[in-house]
Amino acid sequence: MNTTKVTVWNEFRHEKQNGKVQAIYPGGIHGAIAEALNRNPDIEARTATLDEPEHGLTEAVLDQTDVLFWWGHMAHGEVSDTVVERVQKRVLEGMGLIVLHSGHFSKIFRRLMGTNCSLSWRENDDKERLWNLQPGHPITEGIGRYLEIPRHEMYGERFDIPEPEKLIFISWYSGGEVFRSGCTWQRGHGKIFYFSPGHETYPVFHDPQIQRILLNAARWARPTVRIVDACPMVEPVEPSR
Amino acid sequence: MNTTKVTVWNEFRHEKQNGKVQAIYPGGIHGAIAEALNRNPDIEARTATLDEPEHGLTEAVLDQTDVLFWWGHMAHGEVSDTVVERVQKRVLEGMGLIVLHSGHFSKIFRRLMGTNCSLSWRENDDKERLWNLQPGHPITEGIGRYLEIPRHEMYGERFDIPEPEKLIFISWYSGGEVFRSGCTWQRGHGKIFYFSPGHETYPVFHDPQIQRILLNAARWARPTVRIVDACPMVEPVEPSR
Amino acid sequence: MNTTKVTVWNEFRHEKQNGKVQAIYPGGIHGAIAEALNRNPDIEARTATLDEPEHGLTEAVLDQTDVLFWWGHMAHGEVSDTVVERVQKRVLEGMGLIVLHSGHFSKIFRRLMGTNCSLSWRENDDKERLWNLQPGHPITEGIGRYLEIPRHEMYGERFDIPEPEKLIFISWYSGGEVFRSGCTWQRGHGKIFYFSPGHETYPVFHDPQIQRILLNAARWARPTVRIVDACPMVEPVEPSR
Amino acid sequence: MNTTKVTVWNEFRHEKQNGKVQAIYPGGIHGAIAEALNRNPDIEARTATLDEPEHGLTEAVLDQTDVLFWWGHMAHGEVSDTVVERVQKRVLEGMGLIVLHSGHFSKIFRRLMGTNCSLSWRENDDKERLWNLQPGHPITEGIGRYLEIPRHEMYGERFDIPEPEKLIFISWYSGGEVFRSGCTWQRGHGKIFYFSPGHETYPVFHDPQIQRILLNAARWARPTVRIVDACPMVEPVEPSR
Repeated sequence: MNTTKVTVWNEFRHEKQNGKVQAIYPGGIHGAIAEALNRNPDIEARTATLDEPEHGLTEAVLDQTDVLFWWGHMAHGEVSDTVVERVQKRVLEGMGLIVLHSGHFSKIFRRLMGTNCSLSWRENDDKERLWNLQPGHPITEGIGRYLEIPRHEMYGERFDIPEPEKLIFISWYSGGEVFRSGCTWQRGHGKIFYFSPGHETYPVFHDPQIQRILLNAARWARPTVRIVDACPMVEPVEPSR
Repeated sequence: MNTTKVTVWNEFRHEKQNGKVQAIYPGGIHGAIAEALNRNPDIEARTATLDEPEHGLTEAVLDQTDVLFWWGHMAHGEVSDTVVERVQKRVLEGMGLIVLHSGHFSKIFRRLMGTNCSLSWRENDDKERLWNLQPGHPITEGIGRYLEIPRHEMYGERFDIPEPEKLIFISWYSGGEVFRSGCTWQRGHGKIFYFSPGHETYPVFHDPQIQRILLNAARWARPTVRIVDACPMVEPVEPSR
Repeated sequence: MNTTKVTVWNEFRHEKQNGKVQAIYPGGIHGAIAEALNRNPDIEARTATLDEPEHGLTEAVLDQTDVLFWWGHMAHGEVSDTVVERVQKRVLEGMGLIVLHSGHFSKIFRRLMGTNCSLSWRENDDKERLWNLQPGHPITEGIGRYLEIPRHEMYGERFDIPEPEKLIFISWYSGGEVFRSGCTWQRGHGKIFYFSPGHETYPVFHDPQIQRILLNAARWARPTVRIVDACPMVEPVEPSR
Repeated sequence: MNTTKVTVWNEFRHEKQNGKVQAIYPGGIHGAIAEALNRNPDIEARTATLDEPEHGLTEAVLDQTDVLFWWGHMAHGEVSDTVVERVQKRVLEGMGLIVLHSGHFSKIFRRLMGTNCSLSWRENDDKERLWNLQPGHPITEGIGRYLEIPRHEMYGERFDIPEPEKLIFISWYSGGEVFRSGCTWQRGHGKIFYFSPGHETYPVFHDPQIQRILLNAARWARPTVRIVDACPMVEPVEPSR
C-alpha cells in the first residue's frame, strides 16, 4: 500500500476570532480534516497555517507533500506571492491540490485557473444537495446518488472557471440556485479538485460523507511522477538530409 | 458588417537590434501584422509596443480593443505586472487574445493558462508543416489540408498547457518533432488562440496563408459581450418555505 | 446576411392523440417552432414529420438543410435506421443539429453521443429554473442570468452523456433535482446543441425566451463547410530519403 | 493486488491468409498480446476471435471481462450488430476498452465515438515516432519522451474523432504526416483508449515498450463499478410546498 503524504493548509483565523467557529472546530478546520484523513492507514496528514513562518509551506514541507488541501477565506491577500509561486510550481511538477469552499478566491486557485473564480453567495441556512454525476469516479467511491448538507452557505452560478475536465458534483439550493460544486482539472502534471462544501460556521467537515470525499480526493490526486519542466534547446532526432 | 478593433502588441526589440530582423520587418513585426489585417475593411488594427508609456496598453486603449495580438520574446520580464493584470482583466471581460510564437512564455499567456507553457526548441532551419485538424473551424477558413513554412524555428512537445478546448493545428518538423501549433481556450468571457509560427528571423508574417489565419482568428475572437464579473451577495430567488 | 435553412422535425403523434397537447400546439410542435423561427428574416424554416415518406428527411431535404431541429418522444423506435444513418452522415459533414427535450432518447442523439443518454424524470408540475453559465455564448444572446418555466416535466441527473464541450445551462427544479439542460458538442464538422425544455403538455415553445434560444442556436449551428470525410490512401508529402 | 480480467479480441483473419503475418504472429495477434499481458501477475488475459460462436463475446465472457482489447481490420462488417450492442452496453456499464490500430474503423469504436473515425493512410515502411504528451499519466508509466517504430503503416490526420479528453501521444512520420496516436475518452462509466500502433505486417506487438503501454492501459481502464443505467421515474426529493 502506497502512503499518501497530505498537508492540510488552513488560514486558521476564524477559529481564533469567532466563538461559534471555535466551538465547531476547536482544533481548527485543518485539525478536523487531518484527523479524519489520518484514520486511514494509507494517509499521513499533517497541517500548516497562515501565521507560521512561510505559512508552514517551506520547500522542505512541499518536497514531502503528495497532496495539499487548501482552506482560506478572510486573509487571501496575506498569503505571500513567494509561497503562492512555490505551491504553483509544485503542483505543476505533480503535487495534487484540493481546494475547499472559500478557497475558490485564493491566490493559488485563481493563478492555476487563470480566471476570476467569482461566484454569487448568501449566508442564509440554505439546504444544499450535491448530485453525483460521476458514480464511477474515484472521488465518489462510497457516495450514492446525492448527499445533503442541511444548512450551508449558498454558492451560485455563474462560477467563473475554465470548463472543468470532469464535472463531479452539481449542487441544488433551497433558495433556487445551482452550482458546479465538484470539479477537476489537470495543470502541468498535477491534479486539482475544487470542492465547494465547508463554510466555517457549519460542521460540514465532521460529516462522514464529506470526509469520505476528501479521503477519495487525496487518493485520486496522489502523483506518480515529479517532473520539473524546462524549456530546453534540443538536437534534432532525425539525421539531417 | 461589424468592425473588429484590433491592437497588435509587439515587444519591438529584435527589430531595433538585429539587422537581419530589421531587413525582414522594417516596420516591426507589429507593423507587418497590422498592415496585413488592415487590408480587410472589417478590421481596424493599430499597434502598441513595449517601450511606449504603459507599453501602449492604457485602459483607454484596451477599452477600444476587441482583439489583442501579442508577440514578445527577449523581454517578457520587462512587461509590468500592472499591465499584465489589466490585460488579463480585459480578456476575462470578453476581449479576444491571439498569442503568437514566443509569446508562449509571456506573462499574460502563462497567467491565463496557469501552467509553465514550456516547450523544447531549436533554431536550425527546420521545415515545418502545420496539419489542419479543424477544416470547418472559422480559424482555418480558406486553408487546405496543411500549410508549410520552408524554414522555421522548431517548437516541440511536451508543450506544458492545459488540454486545448479545440486543437486546430499540429506541426510536423523535419528534425523529427511534433507540436500543438494552434490551440484555443476560453477564459472568463474571452477567447484565446495560441499560434506558434512567427520567429523573428524568418518572414513568416509576410506569408499570405499565415496572414489569412491571423485575420480569421481576429474575426473568431471578437467578443459580443463585455461582462465584469464580481462576487455578489444575492437574495434567494425562491420564497422561503 | 446569410440565410440559415432550418428543417424542424417532429414526431407529431401526441398532437394527434391527446386533446390537451392539440390545444397547446394546434399546428404541431414543429409548426410552432418553425413559425417562431420564420419571424426572423435570416431564417427559412420548414418542417418534416415521422409519418411522411422517409419521415420527410429525404436526401434532397437534408441537402438543403443547414440546421435540423429534432423533437421525438413516444415513437423513437419507428424512425428507420436508414434515415438515422442519413442524418448522422449529414451532421458529420457539417449540418447543425438541435435536439429538444425527449429527443435525448432518440436514435440520432444516442448514435452521435455513443452513450445511453438516460436520465431520471417526473411529470409533476415542477418549477424549472435554467441558470445561464455562458452569458457570452451566441446561444444565450439576449438571455439574462436565468429563465424560468413555471410548470414543466422534471429531467434529473445523472444524464448519461459525454462531458459537454460547453455546458450552457444547468436547471434547478422545485422537487430538488438538477440537470445539465443546455449542452454543446461537435461531431465530425457538425455542431450539436441539446436543450431540455419542451414537454408536449406545457406551452414551452410559445415562450419568447425559449424561442430566442432556439433562434440563437440555429444561427450558432449554421455550418460554413460541407466536408465528406473518407479514408484515402495518400502519397508521402516528404520526398523519400 | 486487484486482478484485472482482460479479454483480447482479434479478427484473426490476416494470420490465416497471409504467410508474412503468420510468420510474425504464429499464435495470432491476440495470442501475442495476451501472452505479453499474462507475464504480469495482476493480469488474467484470455482471447476471443471473430470466427468463434458469438465472436467469443458471449454475455458470460463479457460479465467476466474488466478490460476488452480490440483488433480488427478486413472484416469489420462481419461483426454482428448484436455483439456490438452487447459490447457497447458493457462499456457504458464500466468495462474498459482498448482499441488498437485498424480498430479505428470497427463498428464498436465508431458507435462509441459517433463519428466516422476516418483518417488517411499509407503502407510504405514509414518511420513512426510517438511523442509522449502526458509523462505523468498511468498509460505512459515507464515510457520516455518518445518511442519509435522503425517501419510502420502511416496513419495521418484528419482523424475524425470527438476531441479526446486526454491526448496522450502524437505521432510523427518520415513521410511528413502527424497523427493523434493515443487518445482517451469516457463513455458511460467506461474508459476508452485508442492506440494506433499495430499493423499486422510489422512486429509491433512484440516491442517491449508497446507491450508496456498495453499493460498500463489495461490497469488504467480497469473499472471499479458496474452500473446499469436506466431512465427511472422518480419521486421528488423535496417535500411539496
